[in-house]
Amino acid sequence: MTQKHLLLIAHGSRRQASNDEVRQLAERVGQLRGADIAAVEVAFLELAEPSIPEGLARCVAQGAQEIVVFPYFLAAGTHVVSDIPEAIEAFRAQHPGGRIRLTNHLGTSNALPRAILTVAAG
Amino acid sequence: MTQKHLLLIAHGSRRQASNDEVRQLAERVGQLRGADIAAVEVAFLELAEPSIPEGLARCVAQGAQEIVVFPYFLAAGTHVVSDIPEAIEAFRAQHPGGRIRLTNHLGTSNALPRAILTVAAG
Repeated sequence: MTQKHLLLIAHGSRRQASNDEVRQLAERVGQLRGADIAAVEVAFLELAEPSIPEGLARCVAQGAQEIVVFPYFLAAGTHVVSDIPEAIEAFRAQHPGGRIRLTNHLGTSNALPRAILTVAAG
Repeated sequence: MTQKHLLLIAHGSRRQASNDEVRQLAERVGQLRGADIAAVEVAFLELAEPSIPEGLARCVAQGAQEIVVFPYFLAAGTHVVSDIPEAIEAFRAQHPGGRIRLTNHLGTSNALPRAILTVAAG
């Protein structure tokens, strides 16, 4: 079976606690162990480490045969529409054999309305 | 029964499509019709209308007896920690009779890991 890794891409913040929130979220996703995901990694667009190319390289070094890239963003702004796809294209050009799939960003998730209602009811 | 309204607070963007994404999300939450929510409204912290006080006033004008305020933010930055609570306090001071409950921000939702995995698997 293809070893599939999930790479969560967040914006990154000067506030370390915000970056840690994302890292903790990735750990929780990893603990779900569904969807044939072998490992969950985090990368940041800016202001925090690892960068997107570093995160992709980390997945490859761990033996990923497919990398699913998930933009942890609410809106389809420049970061989602241009910056992340460009970073992936640049990595692809240097690693022509790898399979990288870019998913929709979080804001489009069909699970969001229910998640919001759950928080509102709590 | 108390008439409860949900007010989704997003950051707001110069890009109208991003603001419309939030408005559409609010509509989808409203269509779920769970958690005793009578209506779902949107407000923006900046760069878009309505503002937070305008959104709160709209809920009151519609007959809300309780307003549940949901910060549609991923990280607990200054907006979540200070700006939104301060805007609510200012409104409370002017409307002492109203019940306003501020929930945790989206980033803390227990439903998020599963939502991410669903997108990743799709």
